[in-house]
Amino acid sequence: MSGSLVVTGVAGLPEIVAGDSIGVLVARCVPLCAGDVVVVTQKIVSKSEGRVVPLDPDDPTAKRKLAESEAVRVLRRRGELVVTETRHGFVCASSGVDLSNVADGYAVLLPVDADRSARRIRDQIRHAAGVEVGVVVSDTFGRPWRRGLTDVAIGCAGIAGIVDLRGQLDALGRELAITEVCVADEIAGAADLVMGKSSGIPVALVRGVDSAWLRESSVRDEVVRPHDEDLLR
Amino acid sequence: MSGSLVVTGVAGLPEIVAGDSIGVLVARCVPLCAGDVVVVTQKIVSKSEGRVVPLDPDDPTAKRKLAESEAVRVLRRRGELVVTETRHGFVCASSGVDLSNVADGYAVLLPVDADRSARRIRDQIRHAAGVEVGVVVSDTFGRPWRRGLTDVAIGCAGIAGIVDLRGQLDALGRELAITEVCVADEIAGAADLVMGKSSGIPVALVRGVDSAWLRESSVRDEVVRPHDEDLLR
Repeated sequence: MSGSLVVTGVAGLPEIVAGDSIGVLVARCVPLCAGDVVVVTQKIVSKSEGRVVPLDPDDPTAKRKLAESEAVRVLRRRGELVVTETRHGFVCASSGVDLSNVADGYAVLLPVDADRSARRIRDQIRHAAGVEVGVVVSDTFGRPWRRGLTDVAIGCAGIAGIVDLRGQLDALGRELAITEVCVADEIAGAADLVMGKSSGIPVALVRGVDSAWLRESSVRDEVVRPHDEDLLR
Repeated sequence: MSGSLVVTGVAGLPEIVAGDSIGVLVARCVPLCAGDVVVVTQKIVSKSEGRVVPLDPDDPTAKRKLAESEAVRVLRRRGELVVTETRHGFVCASSGVDLSNVADGYAVLLPVDADRSARRIRDQIRHAAGVEVGVVVSDTFGRPWRRGLTDVAIGCAGIAGIVDLRGQLDALGRELAITEVCVADEIAGAADLVMGKSSGIPVALVRGVDSAWLRESSVRDEVVRPHDEDLLR
């Protein structure tokens, strides 16, 4: 056996409201070690940042209209369902606008800058617990060609978005053709496995990631792919 | 803290050759428990199944031509790089044809049926170790809109491809809008975090997945998305 990764759901957080310090609350719920990665779902990050807006529950077009107002571009439309590109450069359903786990008549928007949100939570944990952790803000996105949703990183701090393996050698001593792994997305997905969508566990702790991945980072700069280099788009 | 997931790289496997029983070899390397999920990278599955073909190392077009011969459709082309749809319905670079970690002058193809590969490994482990495990066969794919590669499931057995949360309630007691989570892909990505591309660890053990996810399954039937329902394509 080689090194293990341990992924644990963090239970016991209160219902998050605007102004809450998620980093402080997480540090109260669970003992943290240097090098841990704390994965926080977008929903509570947005709530802590007051990114909750009223939405007419009797207007079937309200969610689509709100999604479009949060988008720079609508890529696909099927009835009231839209796939958009957000201001952050994310391509997802409804610009990430979400009505689950929020009071009726309200919708939750994505954080304005989820990398900044991640840095803020990281800094809160540094102050509250005296340890340096990585933070990933995760959200649940669909993807083309494959059914089902997976959690991906929409913001990160202190943990790499992309790990570049260029120059490393494969097991036969030749330079690797596969060069860039999006560890932030893999960490977000791993965390989702212990959260469950309905279990009300919005934070997970990932312990044991490669220490070389612990560095300044940004989803927007590292993971969002510029249009002109996107062969798969 | 709630339940933990533990992801461990399985070291000590020999170099895999055609005819090897991967399930038997894994069972020799690591103590397995009922409900564990064994994630096996496509590369060694293909090698064990003899899916290795000669490739002229001096012909710069050889890999592209082989990729096209493995495809039902070429979606994108940039120079010698192609994005294809394989016979299995996967959309990926080069039909999954891979030259890393294989002797010079050879290429590795995808398994003919990676669900069947997963079932075979599951059955080998059942016989060798007397435990019922889930098996995911993983490969490394790119995706549109986001940089970097992540590991996804190309075959599974005994562990759900997609978990359908329809009918479950969110933390506020309302029916969830997010209904289908591709846990097989999230498990494959989690496993990749302990494998590393160059460390020569082609198998990982994921312990602690929700026991409700342990059931007969198929990536081809559950995860590959039919064209007509693909709003993101």
